[in-house]
Amino acid sequence: MTIRFEIMAHDGAARVGRLQTAHGAIETPAFMPVGTAATVKAMSPEAVAATGARIVLGNTYHLMLRPGAERVASLGGLHKFMNWPHAILTDSGGFQVMSLAALRTISEEGVAFRSHLDGSKHLLTPERSVDIQRLLGSDITMAFDECTPFPSPREAVEASMELSMRWAERSRRAFVERSGHGIVGIVQGGVHPDLRARSAARLVEIGFDGYAIGGLAIGEGQATTFAMVEATVPGLPEDRPRYLMGVGKPDDLVGAVKRGIDMFDCVLPTRSGRTGQAFTRDGALNLKNARHADDPGPLDALCRCSACTGFSRAYLHHLVKSGEILASMLLTTHNLTYYADLTAAMRAAIRAGRFAEFTTATMAEAA
Amino acid sequence: MTIRFEIMAHDGAARVGRLQTAHGAIETPAFMPVGTAATVKAMSPEAVAATGARIVLGNTYHLMLRPGAERVASLGGLHKFMNWPHAILTDSGGFQVMSLAALRTISEEGVAFRSHLDGSKHLLTPERSVDIQRLLGSDITMAFDECTPFPSPREAVEASMELSMRWAERSRRAFVERSGHGIVGIVQGGVHPDLRARSAARLVEIGFDGYAIGGLAIGEGQATTFAMVEATVPGLPEDRPRYLMGVGKPDDLVGAVKRGIDMFDCVLPTRSGRTGQAFTRDGALNLKNARHADDPGPLDALCRCSACTGFSRAYLHHLVKSGEILASMLLTTHNLTYYADLTAAMRAAIRAGRFAEFTTATMAEAA
Repeated sequence: MTIRFEIMAHDGAARVGRLQTAHGAIETPAFMPVGTAATVKAMSPEAVAATGARIVLGNTYHLMLRPGAERVASLGGLHKFMNWPHAILTDSGGFQVMSLAALRTISEEGVAFRSHLDGSKHLLTPERSVDIQRLLGSDITMAFDECTPFPSPREAVEASMELSMRWAERSRRAFVERSGHGIVGIVQGGVHPDLRARSAARLVEIGFDGYAIGGLAIGEGQATTFAMVEATVPGLPEDRPRYLMGVGKPDDLVGAVKRGIDMFDCVLPTRSGRTGQAFTRDGALNLKNARHADDPGPLDALCRCSACTGFSRAYLHHLVKSGEILASMLLTTHNLTYYADLTAAMRAAIRAGRFAEFTTATMAEAA
Repeated sequence: MTIRFEIMAHDGAARVGRLQTAHGAIETPAFMPVGTAATVKAMSPEAVAATGARIVLGNTYHLMLRPGAERVASLGGLHKFMNWPHAILTDSGGFQVMSLAALRTISEEGVAFRSHLDGSKHLLTPERSVDIQRLLGSDITMAFDECTPFPSPREAVEASMELSMRWAERSRRAFVERSGHGIVGIVQGGVHPDLRARSAARLVEIGFDGYAIGGLAIGEGQATTFAMVEATVPGLPEDRPRYLMGVGKPDDLVGAVKRGIDMFDCVLPTRSGRTGQAFTRDGALNLKNARHADDPGPLDALCRCSACTGFSRAYLHHLVKSGEILASMLLTTHNLTYYADLTAAMRAAIRAGRFAEFTTATMAEAA
């Protein structure tokens, strides 16, 4: 048995689902905090779970280089290593190998590269990526793909997408079926609706446990992102989860859910938390700003997180100005809680058949 | 009523005490984690309390410059500001103004200096230091003193000590009595037993709620530190708490408790935690060391802290090597738990009349 996905409610294209993995169930729409190096930065695993998150993302590229997939396997797998009892999705390394590694050479076989940490030589192929993800013990494996730079000429995007589809097929074949574990294919095709549709059709033909939309949120703009979602979703099966990779801002999430997306990941809430930015029901706040220095009120009066219930904006401003680690801890806690509560609110609105109202009322800027 | 101190048990010069403040009781011997800028670095206040600590130290020098004492007062005081419901001791700024500030000028009145943050001009006097500590709302105020550099000629140490004693008297006069709040005088006199004894006698004549030994642990070595404790303690009243400032390593604490000390503060467990060092029952460990890379065991098998119960040495090594904030969080949690449990073990040994055995068995290196 693979990962099981059940649709619990619909409202237009938006849906509430339940994804059952070997490490528990995830209610969708869901946001996955990014835990690149086997830690969601500045957060204990207990604190991550307290935000409401029940799945985190691990990065194959980072983990294969340090501490190494075989080492994690010999230590009992990634869940045990990072003390995270809930679900883990690992990416395939395709995106990071293009953005971080040195001296890349792409061939039909895969990507040869040197580590950005120590210059050591590595080869990442669909088969190796899937095997690394198995060694890590991730519940949800991502197919290995090439991430095309944006912008690129259409011919380059098309050739890259076709290569990714051949790699998707090899990834699917390499995946070892285990109970509660699944593999997700990644739609590519840049900003070209017809390429996106062709990619989706090819993946469905191969057959995956879920479908992701990749290669977006890299500079093309929200309207184009949404257009690509609209070009892709109709070609995907209704009964499988849909994951928009690397997205995004709160209004990006709302607009994508409206268009039928179930899952997201993004470094925005965690990275912003480490640079003094907070997402609130009053909009984004920069805690570095001197206007917070004497403010006794919480970041967000309606938020349940420990940063909002225990501390003032004045204190958070002080911590940010002082470069204190606790600033990163509290603002990351808050931002991840904000994202978790945003997805929970979307689920409630969809169940109540009021998602259009929710969209209008809380996210006027969402398309 | 000032702070109340009760001796619960004795074993030789070592004693177990209970110090009652406006923000709860502290069992002594006690170690106070350092919370310089209104935060124990890399720790939430809940996590600090979970280590067992019931008192933390705040730094007057840092807090007067940022966020400012009047600001903290207008926000409800330091306890509320940093969300710490237990006791707070503040230092007087005397030590930091000498080690951190720029363009210092010392006069009978006090110390004029420029902020190391923005170059702004400030004057710290005994009266201002005590007032800042009142504005912060600290339970235990420290008298303002001059910290003599080590080594210094005897005449310089003597003149500095005499100045500190005049400042101690002014500090005592400036202190506003409040229920559950007290002021502690600081014995100076460098490495000269007779100056230490004279300083102690002078402070007792003035009359304080507790007595600290300052100006040590700055390079004179453990044997000299212990000798100065031995030269000072006989001149201090039995029924008041004794605080050895800025000390120290685990064996420093054990040796000082043996000589009648009740309270300690030191940046060692917190600062070490941020540089990959852990104190354990097997000695100090450097988690950067590659020998930990594949070790599935905990830091310290007998430790109750979340770092030891949830994670392996291999994982902690990975976090340290990766520069992850969670490394600082977990190692600080562990080190503060280690210090809290060391003081708890000393209290138990003293109550059981077995402190000499405890010293020999667990701290062979302690004098």
